[in-house]
Amino acid sequence: MAFVTFEGIDGSGKTTQAKRLVAALRECAVQVLATKEPDGGHIGKEIRAILVKCRELKLDPHEEALLVSAARYDHVRSVIRPALDAGLWVVCDRFIDSTFAFQTFENSVSQPFFDIVCSHVVGATLPDFTFILDLDAEQALRRRNAGTAARRIDPAEAHRNFGRIRRGLLEAARRNPQRCHVIDATGGEDSVAAQILDVLHGAGQLPASA
Amino acid sequence: MAFVTFEGIDGSGKTTQAKRLVAALRECAVQVLATKEPDGGHIGKEIRAILVKCRELKLDPHEEALLVSAARYDHVRSVIRPALDAGLWVVCDRFIDSTFAFQTFENSVSQPFFDIVCSHVVGATLPDFTFILDLDAEQALRRRNAGTAARRIDPAEAHRNFGRIRRGLLEAARRNPQRCHVIDATGGEDSVAAQILDVLHGAGQLPASA
Repeated sequence: MAFVTFEGIDGSGKTTQAKRLVAALRECAVQVLATKEPDGGHIGKEIRAILVKCRELKLDPHEEALLVSAARYDHVRSVIRPALDAGLWVVCDRFIDSTFAFQTFENSVSQPFFDIVCSHVVGATLPDFTFILDLDAEQALRRRNAGTAARRIDPAEAHRNFGRIRRGLLEAARRNPQRCHVIDATGGEDSVAAQILDVLHGAGQLPASA
Repeated sequence: MAFVTFEGIDGSGKTTQAKRLVAALRECAVQVLATKEPDGGHIGKEIRAILVKCRELKLDPHEEALLVSAARYDHVRSVIRPALDAGLWVVCDRFIDSTFAFQTFENSVSQPFFDIVCSHVVGATLPDFTFILDLDAEQALRRRNAGTAARRIDPAEAHRNFGRIRRGLLEAARRNPQRCHVIDATGGEDSVAAQILDVLHGAGQLPASA
């Protein structure tokens, strides 16, 4: 079993790839828990509602980091840790590196603050593999705009933030080379999925059939 | 102007005394902002709703500390700091010492975690005066039971926690002797109010008429 997280800017395909990995594992009869943040855990939905409401209120990044961390605390202890202890794989869409990229690197939350909150919230339950789906902000924007209208966001705002968030995710990878794998997400879905399975095969983590 | 906080276990009379101080200051034409936690600030009500809901869910003290800190971050920046900068007094019912006593001393949140979160959340906006209304847990329980039925809580639970929370507040006073004043809250309302005004008069903070 392994704890796998997916990170990437909106439009990078991380949610799609997380689902594909879950499906590939289940085809090999591997037991998997699929989860995501910030919704996982018993207060996740309430926290997401505050975050959505507060986009208009311009919530400070420190508040965002504290709220997301509160939701994560339970998510780790009530959902992720018990599944790992029971021998399941866990595949999680977004985790600590999103907090690093969005609130610390992109915004004003200091790295020592992030590090101490993160170490208390996550404890020893760090991912074994983090796949950072890397894509140019403009290409991600084109992908989002090709999607449904509901997913469209202001292009100028999106471009400005997402370029910096992308650099934050690459910085997270640089800080955590033992678990983070930067995946070129510019290709098609199949090519990206193959790169991810290659990493897991290379680490001897997958049945040969996967 | 000064930033004054009131702390104490339920039944200690802190809310009553905070209101009395606000009234005394206003009688002397001193401008005062009266506020409280965790309701102050733009996400305070949502956070309180999660805390109340999660009493049944047995929210972990780390989650409580992170949620309360998220609400406090905005409360300090949007409510308390602007009032102090405008020359007003601020009187706040509960603040950082409640978090110390309830989540750190009473529970499992470590002091280094509390200290770094607190320093990032509060910054330089520490209280000038913190009045810790000190009362035996049994006496506080009798006072609560003499109140309305809605305020009654399970006596065994209340007694067990409140004795320890009281010790946490006294420990907060020991750690912060420059701003914390432990007030004997066993006497009547007038006697307690007089002790509080004595401290402020002694520090040269009040008009002679207060």
